[in-house]
Amino acid sequence: MQMTDLIAKKRDGGALSTEEIRFMIQGYTAGEIPDYQMSAMCMAIVWRGMDDRETLDLTMAMVHSGETLDLSPIRGIKADKHSTGGVGDKTSLILCPMVAACGVKIAKMSGRGLGHTGGTIDKLESFPGFVTGISEERFFENVNRVGIAIAGQTADLVPADKKLYALRDVTGTVPAIPLIVSSIMSKKLASGADVIVLDVKCGSGAFMKTPEQASELARGLTRVGRLAGKKCAAVITDMDEPLGCAVGNALEVKEAISVLRGETKGELLELCLTLGACILTEAGLAESEQAAREQLQRSIDDGSALRKLADLVEAQYGDSRAVYDETLLPAAPVTLEALSEEAGYVRRIEAEQVGLVSMHLGGGRVTKESAIDLGVGVVLHKKVGDRVEKGESLGTIHASDEKKAAEAAELLRRCYRFSAEPVEKPAFIKGVVR
Amino acid sequence: MQMTDLIAKKRDGGALSTEEIRFMIQGYTAGEIPDYQMSAMCMAIVWRGMDDRETLDLTMAMVHSGETLDLSPIRGIKADKHSTGGVGDKTSLILCPMVAACGVKIAKMSGRGLGHTGGTIDKLESFPGFVTGISEERFFENVNRVGIAIAGQTADLVPADKKLYALRDVTGTVPAIPLIVSSIMSKKLASGADVIVLDVKCGSGAFMKTPEQASELARGLTRVGRLAGKKCAAVITDMDEPLGCAVGNALEVKEAISVLRGETKGELLELCLTLGACILTEAGLAESEQAAREQLQRSIDDGSALRKLADLVEAQYGDSRAVYDETLLPAAPVTLEALSEEAGYVRRIEAEQVGLVSMHLGGGRVTKESAIDLGVGVVLHKKVGDRVEKGESLGTIHASDEKKAAEAAELLRRCYRFSAEPVEKPAFIKGVVR
Repeated sequence: MQMTDLIAKKRDGGALSTEEIRFMIQGYTAGEIPDYQMSAMCMAIVWRGMDDRETLDLTMAMVHSGETLDLSPIRGIKADKHSTGGVGDKTSLILCPMVAACGVKIAKMSGRGLGHTGGTIDKLESFPGFVTGISEERFFENVNRVGIAIAGQTADLVPADKKLYALRDVTGTVPAIPLIVSSIMSKKLASGADVIVLDVKCGSGAFMKTPEQASELARGLTRVGRLAGKKCAAVITDMDEPLGCAVGNALEVKEAISVLRGETKGELLELCLTLGACILTEAGLAESEQAAREQLQRSIDDGSALRKLADLVEAQYGDSRAVYDETLLPAAPVTLEALSEEAGYVRRIEAEQVGLVSMHLGGGRVTKESAIDLGVGVVLHKKVGDRVEKGESLGTIHASDEKKAAEAAELLRRCYRFSAEPVEKPAFIKGVVR
Repeated sequence: MQMTDLIAKKRDGGALSTEEIRFMIQGYTAGEIPDYQMSAMCMAIVWRGMDDRETLDLTMAMVHSGETLDLSPIRGIKADKHSTGGVGDKTSLILCPMVAACGVKIAKMSGRGLGHTGGTIDKLESFPGFVTGISEERFFENVNRVGIAIAGQTADLVPADKKLYALRDVTGTVPAIPLIVSSIMSKKLASGADVIVLDVKCGSGAFMKTPEQASELARGLTRVGRLAGKKCAAVITDMDEPLGCAVGNALEVKEAISVLRGETKGELLELCLTLGACILTEAGLAESEQAAREQLQRSIDDGSALRKLADLVEAQYGDSRAVYDETLLPAAPVTLEALSEEAGYVRRIEAEQVGLVSMHLGGGRVTKESAIDLGVGVVLHKKVGDRVEKGESLGTIHASDEKKAAEAAELLRRCYRFSAEPVEKPAFIKGVVR
């Protein structure tokens, strides 16, 4: 089998066989197929696409390029959630305790990654003493006992994706549904959960700009998940502004706690209820979406979801009192209000740029070795559709010093787009694909 | 400027600017842009194409990647010819003396290349003593005095093409008109001629399978040539069988001499008259195609074209008596007739496979260092449309020993496709593009 022939086949619009896809991914992971052939193949896939069978074969070949997690020591149904990436996305911190409180097992291994804020495990480190590097034994034990564990990833999952994504990133071959689907789903399948829910972002701040593109991706993801024998659903959500109000690690933990306490409602709660309902119904733990939503709402009303977060923190050696006492969480020494220089209705908030404000304050990681300042970040007071007067605060900057605070306030002002006319806030949830 | 952005632009159907194309070719030639980005770009070009301005820019950027030949020391109009590659193609050996006899200057620098037989300079080495590695001074002096010189290429012309072609060859990105056009035309433009004629092959044995594809390539080539300020024309010819009868170095020289003597007519003469007429009219040395063809035919009838070949051989230290006495040319010790095991009408002769017969006999070069056996090869006696009886000879094998001769005869038999019904020979010249 020759890689050149496979490239020509895809270039001419043909479908690659299971064996051909396996040969390609094995050869590429082993370094036998060079980058320059793989990048030409990726561009041919951007052009010609792949059918469901090819996409599934590609996904499975990638799953088998490395280790996979065996979650069989865990009793019950295991669920996992993935988001295509958003600024201010603290959904996992709320959703995981909620569904765990409803009886679904959450065994989540997360990478740290790069970005405007840390990943979920970085955010959890806001709890004093929290340990992400727990042993596999302890990990399984915790899930069985508490129902939830979120640990740093130690296994070498899907090395093919690491290599392939790095290549796609510099060869203009990121935007191809089959390549995006196989990248996301190979990691989810290698992680071993039974139920997988996906939050597909859509809008100016997301990779998928239109609801149509997002819907196509959502359908691709769930189809491959189901073909691989998993329960699978996807929710398409708006990303024309950051998710919720806080952007920054400890600030997002505080916002998550506020939602779990029932104090903060709105889009963040709505997203967790929708994703959670998908999980509970797919897991067979609720008869209808309505029943599932009621169960999830009850976990907030009766405090069981918040207790589940405290259990998680405690089981991983953290100070669970911080769940009930915010003053125990990291905080920045300086706060500054970013006052608006314009009046009008908020039309858009450039999510990506708000992320850069957090980055500027030290809340994100530039290289894998960077240290994160857990206390810094931004809390927005105005969101899309809100009326703003000149001199009113758009958001509070939490910074390590006054100079950075002033710079960040200026940067935050530039993230806002105003309209003289009232703005109707677009529907946050654009659709559910099951 | 970032190569990733340029790839994305082409991927999305945009046109690259002159500066962007220059940046890309300079960077790639210098090794600053990696193969894996260039191959993704090439696949995007296969997909999206390039307009005339982009193709010209690409061609000129490639021309300027290395040295160019300055033919200004040569008086008069200089012409060059290129073929997209055919088995048994000895056209240059006939055409160049013919047009030189009509007053056009031929200053041809050729590479040796790989293939089923040698290149034009290898074939010329069939003349005992012929030197291809003459000095630049001698080269110009010969063209001015004799009207023709054909030498081995010493200058580093179009290094970008060498690198890019090697990459395209292993990444499925050969078949894209703008890439083919820039590869061919950059080399022709770097070689400095005023008039460029192109022989675009079409058919099962050629890269362009249909007349439509061949015509598209021919139009692309001539457009870029003219945009670069050259006189340019292209002839589209059939390649459903080898060109002429001989395949092998000295054997092809003998066939060429036979055409120049006026003894062999047919498609080979017709091609030389057509290409030659393009050159003479583009050069302004003939008022009409008809006048040009008459001039060219006269160069055969009065022996001046044959004398021009003898002049060329003599000026490059070869034994010009061999032009008039075939026994002075290399010959293989063994000949064997390849007898047909079938009866019928010849429907097709797989040109590529006939080339492999010559290769098997030692007439071609496998690696750049291979020695060529100048005497060996095949002379076909039956061509498309001919009636063949069982036991009749399809062609004569010229070999270095009897074992190889027998093997080659068997291989040659397999090149023929027969039909029970009479076969009409297709038109050899499919069109002329000016």
